[in-house]
Amino acid sequence: MPSETDTPETPRPRYDIDRLKAKLAGIKTEDNPALVRQKSRDFYWYSPTLKRQLDHVAGDIIVSPANEQEVVRVLAAAFELGIPVTPRGTGTGNYGQAMPLSGGIVLDLSGMNKVLAVQPGRFVAEAGAVIAEIDKVARPQAQEIRMHPSTYATASVGGFIAGGSGGVGSITWGGLRDAGNVIRLKVVTMEASPRVLELTGDDLAKVAHAYGTNGIITEVEMPLGPSYRWVDLFLGFDTFERAAAFAGALGEQDGIAKKNIAVVAAPAPQTYFLRHQDYMVPGKHVVIAIIADFAVDAALNFARRQGAELLLRTDKLDEDERRKMPPGFELTWNHTTLRALRVDPAITYLQVLYPFPDQVKLATAIHEKFGDEVVGHLEFVRFDGKVTCFGLPLVRFTTEERLEEIMAIHEDMGAPIFNPHRYTLEEGGMKQTDEVQLAFKKEADPQGLLNPGKMIAWEDPSYDYKSGKTFLFKSLADAGVAS
Amino acid sequence: MPSETDTPETPRPRYDIDRLKAKLAGIKTEDNPALVRQKSRDFYWYSPTLKRQLDHVAGDIIVSPANEQEVVRVLAAAFELGIPVTPRGTGTGNYGQAMPLSGGIVLDLSGMNKVLAVQPGRFVAEAGAVIAEIDKVARPQAQEIRMHPSTYATASVGGFIAGGSGGVGSITWGGLRDAGNVIRLKVVTMEASPRVLELTGDDLAKVAHAYGTNGIITEVEMPLGPSYRWVDLFLGFDTFERAAAFAGALGEQDGIAKKNIAVVAAPAPQTYFLRHQDYMVPGKHVVIAIIADFAVDAALNFARRQGAELLLRTDKLDEDERRKMPPGFELTWNHTTLRALRVDPAITYLQVLYPFPDQVKLATAIHEKFGDEVVGHLEFVRFDGKVTCFGLPLVRFTTEERLEEIMAIHEDMGAPIFNPHRYTLEEGGMKQTDEVQLAFKKEADPQGLLNPGKMIAWEDPSYDYKSGKTFLFKSLADAGVAS
Repeated sequence: MPSETDTPETPRPRYDIDRLKAKLAGIKTEDNPALVRQKSRDFYWYSPTLKRQLDHVAGDIIVSPANEQEVVRVLAAAFELGIPVTPRGTGTGNYGQAMPLSGGIVLDLSGMNKVLAVQPGRFVAEAGAVIAEIDKVARPQAQEIRMHPSTYATASVGGFIAGGSGGVGSITWGGLRDAGNVIRLKVVTMEASPRVLELTGDDLAKVAHAYGTNGIITEVEMPLGPSYRWVDLFLGFDTFERAAAFAGALGEQDGIAKKNIAVVAAPAPQTYFLRHQDYMVPGKHVVIAIIADFAVDAALNFARRQGAELLLRTDKLDEDERRKMPPGFELTWNHTTLRALRVDPAITYLQVLYPFPDQVKLATAIHEKFGDEVVGHLEFVRFDGKVTCFGLPLVRFTTEERLEEIMAIHEDMGAPIFNPHRYTLEEGGMKQTDEVQLAFKKEADPQGLLNPGKMIAWEDPSYDYKSGKTFLFKSLADAGVAS
Repeated sequence: MPSETDTPETPRPRYDIDRLKAKLAGIKTEDNPALVRQKSRDFYWYSPTLKRQLDHVAGDIIVSPANEQEVVRVLAAAFELGIPVTPRGTGTGNYGQAMPLSGGIVLDLSGMNKVLAVQPGRFVAEAGAVIAEIDKVARPQAQEIRMHPSTYATASVGGFIAGGSGGVGSITWGGLRDAGNVIRLKVVTMEASPRVLELTGDDLAKVAHAYGTNGIITEVEMPLGPSYRWVDLFLGFDTFERAAAFAGALGEQDGIAKKNIAVVAAPAPQTYFLRHQDYMVPGKHVVIAIIADFAVDAALNFARRQGAELLLRTDKLDEDERRKMPPGFELTWNHTTLRALRVDPAITYLQVLYPFPDQVKLATAIHEKFGDEVVGHLEFVRFDGKVTCFGLPLVRFTTEERLEEIMAIHEDMGAPIFNPHRYTLEEGGMKQTDEVQLAFKKEADPQGLLNPGKMIAWEDPSYDYKSGKTFLFKSLADAGVAS
C-alpha cells in the first residue's frame, strides 16, 4: 500500500482543453491548477482509504455554466472532444462523488442556484441552489424543505439528490428514494446534441443517487413541509440500549412533530460536541431530538417516563447562549463524524443498517462488542413505513485491514454495511448492478464520459460483487493506487 | 325486549328547574320539551341497540353558556341543587355520549365557539368551535387541523376530544390519545366552587375521551399541520385483500403526504356513494386515498404498479362536477355508515381492531367469513408508530342477538371489538376501569352529577367486565329499558 507521498504523477489521458475553451467562449472557465485541484475534491478525506486512493485526483478545468443552455453547450463540446465531465454542486459529498477520476471537466453547478418557484407544498430550484437558501425563500410562506443533509448550510439540492440518500427529516418523510420525496428533475444528456429531459415518477430512479454518471441534473422540484420553530432536546441515558430504545419509541410517537432523532454514545458527546460540552454529563449516552416547539412538552413528558435526564433544551437558552451553538442537526448524521474528526483526526466512520424490527438489540450488541474502538451513533428514520435506525458509528482507525475486519464483523452479526470507504455506487450501496441506472447511462451517456469510474456496471460488467475485492478504476490503477 | 312504543313515561327524578332558572338569570336557557328533546340526542340511532335503549332519553332544560364564567355559574348552581349536567357540543357522537340519561341539564357548549388564537403549529379555540370554522381561520396561514372526524363540517372540537378517538388525519398523526395531538385543555370542575384547571401532558388523559363525565372542557389547544390542496383518489381492486394490502402499502409510503386511506368493499361504493356512483365499477373494491396534490403523481404511480384501476381523481374534474360531490372524507369513517344507512336503514356497523402486523390477513379472513352480511370497511391509521387498520364494517342488521354473535366471532378470530352499541365508556372502549379518569372524577365531580351513567367504574365499582352482560344504568332500568 503506497503512502501518499509515493503517489506518482498521474499519467492522465491528454484532453484538448484549448479547443474546449474556444468552444466554450462566454462560459466561465478556470484552469489554474491550484483552483482546479480545490474544486476536484469533496469530503472524501472522512475515509482514510479514500484519502489514500483519491488524494491525487484532479480535473483539468473547471467549467461553471450559468444556466441550462450553457450546460447543453458544455456537454455538446465535451462529447465532441471526448472529454469526461464530472458534475459538482458544492462538494459536500463524502465518497468522492464529485471527484474527476479521469480528469477532464469539473462541471461546477454552484452558480446555477436560483430558486424558481415556491408554492404550497413544493419548490422548484436550479440544481446548484444551496438548501438553506431555498428555505430562506420558503420560510415566509411557513414552509421549509422536508429533508436535508447535515450540510444544510452549504450543500446544493442537486448534489443532495445525486449523491445523498436522506438525512435530517427522514424520521418523518423516509429517504430520498421514497416515492414523493422528489417530484421532478430536469436532466441534460451527454450526447452530440444533448437532450433536456423532464423526469417524474419511476423515471426519477434513473438519475437519483447516480453521482451524475448518467445525466446532469439542472433543475429540481421537491416537496416542502411546514416550517416550525424547532427545538433541540439533549436527553441523557445510563446505557446505550436505553437511549436507543427511547429514540425508537419517540420516533413511534405519531403525534409529536419531529425533524431528527439521533443517539450518540458516551463519551462522544462529552468529547466532541465542543459548544455543547458544558451541558453534557459524564457517562451519559445522549439522544438528540429535534422537536417542534408546540410538541416539546409532550416529548419531554414522554422522555421523563422513559427515564431520560434532560441535559439541554435550546428553547430555554438565552439568545446569546443559543447563538454560540450550532443547530442540533449539525451534531447529527455526517456532522457527528466531522466533529469527532476535528478533535481526533484518527476517527473515521461506517454506515450500517440494523434491520427492523431488531434494530435496537442488534445495534446494542454491536456497540458492546467493540467497546471503545467503535463508538455507537444511530440515526432514526422511517424506512418502508416503519421507524428503524441506521448507524454511523465512529471508528478509531488503525489500519485499513482492521477497518475491513470491523465491517465484516458487522455483516456477520446481521448488520449490512453501506461502505463509505468506496467511491463506486455499487460498493457504497446495494452491492449489485442498478439495471435502471445502467440502461439510462447507455442511452444518455453512450461514450461513458460522465463521472467515469463511479459505476462499476458500466466499467466492468463482469465484476463479481461477491469476490470480496475492492473495485479499482483503471484511471486510479494507472495512477499507481492499489486497491 | 320492549318495542319503542312500549317505553313507559320516564319515572325521572324531580329537579328544581325553577330555582335553577332563577339562579341562572342572564344565561340562555330553553325548556320547551320538543327543543330539549332535540338537543338531548346525538347519532345514537346508528345502533339499533342504542336506539331501543336511549330513544326516550331527554333532559329537563338546555343551558347555553356564552363563556367560561357562565359555565362556572351553571355548574355551581347545578351542584347546589343536585341537578345532573350532560355537556354537548353539536351532538355528532354515535354512542349517546351527549344524552342525559338521568335528565337534568343539557349543557349546550355550541355557543362557545370562538377561535382565540392561531400560531405556527397550533391553535386555541373554545370547546364549542366547529372544526371547519377553526380551519377557516387557520387556512390563510397555510395551516389546518391535523385530525378530525368525518363530521368535520359540523362537529365541535371539544366534542371531538371528549368523545372521539381519531379519524381523518390519523394515517399521519395517530390517534387523539397519542402524545402531542392535544396540547392543552381548560376544564371546569363540578363542585360547590367550580375550579378552572389547565391540563397538559399526562394530565390530558384525565378528561380526554371521558364523555364529559369528570369535567367540562371549555378551551382547547391543539396542533396544526400544513394545509394542502387535497385530492381524492378512488382506486379499484379485484379483491378485498388486494385493496387492503395496497392501502397498507400506500400508508407506508413515507414520502407521500396523505390525509386518509380507507377501503370499502364492493358493493358498498357502488350502492351507497350516490354522488360518486357514476365512477364506481361493478365488483371493484375501492380504496379512497386523500393525497396532497403534489404527491398525486407519486401515489398513482405506486398504485399502478400494485394493479389498481384509477376510478376517479377529483383534481381532474371540472369545478361544477366536483362541487356536486361531498369531499372524500365524507365517505369515510362513520360517514361510510351514514351513507349506507341513508340508502338502507337496516344497516348498522362495528368498530374492529385488527392487530398489527397481520391486519390485512385477518381483515380479509373476517370479510370472507361473513359474505354479504358484513361488508368490509377499513380505515388505515398510524398506531404506536406502525401503519395498521381499524374496521368499521357495515352490518346488515337482523337481531341484537345476531349482532352480538357477529361481534363474538370477530373476537374469537382475534379481532377485538370497540363496541359501538354501548353507551358506557368502558364497554365501548378497553373493557376495564380507567383508573386515571375515575380518580379525577372523584376529585372533580364528587357528587357524580356529570353525564351520569356513562362511567361504569363510578356507577358500579364491582361491575364484572368479563360477565358478558351489558351494563344497564339505573335511570334506564327505571325507565323500563332492558339490557
